[in-house]
Amino acid sequence: MRRLTGFHAVEELLKSERSGLEGRILVTGDGPRIRSILGLAEKRGIAVSRRSREELDRLAPDNRGIVLELDQAPAELEGDLEGFLASLDAEAPALVVVLDHLEDPQNVGAILRSADIFAADLVLVPRRRSAPLSSAVSRASAGALAYVPVATVPNLAASLKRLAAFGFWSYAADMGGSDITGADIPARSVLVFGNEGSGVSRLLREECDGTLSIRQAGHVDSLNVSAAAAIMMYEYRRRHPGTEE
Amino acid sequence: MRRLTGFHAVEELLKSERSGLEGRILVTGDGPRIRSILGLAEKRGIAVSRRSREELDRLAPDNRGIVLELDQAPAELEGDLEGFLASLDAEAPALVVVLDHLEDPQNVGAILRSADIFAADLVLVPRRRSAPLSSAVSRASAGALAYVPVATVPNLAASLKRLAAFGFWSYAADMGGSDITGADIPARSVLVFGNEGSGVSRLLREECDGTLSIRQAGHVDSLNVSAAAAIMMYEYRRRHPGTEE
Repeated sequence: MRRLTGFHAVEELLKSERSGLEGRILVTGDGPRIRSILGLAEKRGIAVSRRSREELDRLAPDNRGIVLELDQAPAELEGDLEGFLASLDAEAPALVVVLDHLEDPQNVGAILRSADIFAADLVLVPRRRSAPLSSAVSRASAGALAYVPVATVPNLAASLKRLAAFGFWSYAADMGGSDITGADIPARSVLVFGNEGSGVSRLLREECDGTLSIRQAGHVDSLNVSAAAAIMMYEYRRRHPGTEE
Repeated sequence: MRRLTGFHAVEELLKSERSGLEGRILVTGDGPRIRSILGLAEKRGIAVSRRSREELDRLAPDNRGIVLELDQAPAELEGDLEGFLASLDAEAPALVVVLDHLEDPQNVGAILRSADIFAADLVLVPRRRSAPLSSAVSRASAGALAYVPVATVPNLAASLKRLAAFGFWSYAADMGGSDITGADIPARSVLVFGNEGSGVSRLLREECDGTLSIRQAGHVDSLNVSAAAAIMMYEYRRRHPGTEE
């Protein structure tokens, strides 16, 4: 069971088009915002239960007055990698983002927020040794976790192989690669972002078709991974604007 | 007096070329990292004082074993805006970043880290109603606070006027402006980033020559300000690579 807290995160998830949301809302207090959220919950057939503030605090110390208890995590509601591949139109451009064992929920949330903005088609996270898709991630994503298609997979290297079979080119984001400003970025691209400390793992890097870097002139080691991800997704969209307004 | 905590932040500041550092180091424990930092401190003529862990904890709960007490804040050690303008070579390209009352130290630190990476020539922050250049900012900047020239100014609008007199064009980063991908970005540019909630203030926006936006396709409101800043500084450097390797 997954608990989501805070007005914004709960509201975004209820407003999203994710199907199969099952769970209940635990709430304390009242007000226009709460009533609006409870209205959304009713439309989606999600039960509402009034609790005392103390009870909510025991369940989730960061509850901010509302808790959505989901029987499944939002990410698990999403189609898997195979479903994504099956639904891809032949030749259609697509951007896949891979998070290789990121640990900081702030970074994962920030990347999901940018992935939403730049309309990434799928985000892959490993099932193990990665920041869980928690309320902290959802809040750092400003609610984008509710919209971005995220698939958790058992083996990232195997996923890159599957994506390659569908015409995707994979690039590790790391130092010492080709400058992304001048590099060719294919319409079907996978951008792989590595752990905050150790970068993209060797195994995954060997599965990639190349390494892309951002030209850096500073004294500190490197860009924060979420800043690098924002720039690289921006660069992908600069080349492949897609059909959005 | 300003207290800086943590090995990384203290080390970066001592290694930087900032002149006029005056203060003292309070330290507990021992080890190669501490000895290396104390060596740096000695070279810069900064006194070292051994304290108990309890004492450090009382002074700065997030001390991580080392506290650098500065008689002046790092930003105040830096030359002011007028000094920067006086030292500018005629016609030389330059990038100035303005932080219009940002509140979140994480964002300020992340932007300083990117400002270092993209070799921004100056960062302006307002003296009031802005996240102080604290240890939290320094840590979020991964030490870049020690390198990036930051000037605190009493009035941002007046600073934009002064910069305009030196051939700078100012742009508010906000929704509804020109798409930065296709926009002209002059060699002397000022990028203005606004408060997390309210954006660039009206007064400052009126002082700007235009508004630049990042094309967005998502469901959430907008990019995080530090992601937007990273992308816009990257775009400036894409047009004006400078002389760095």
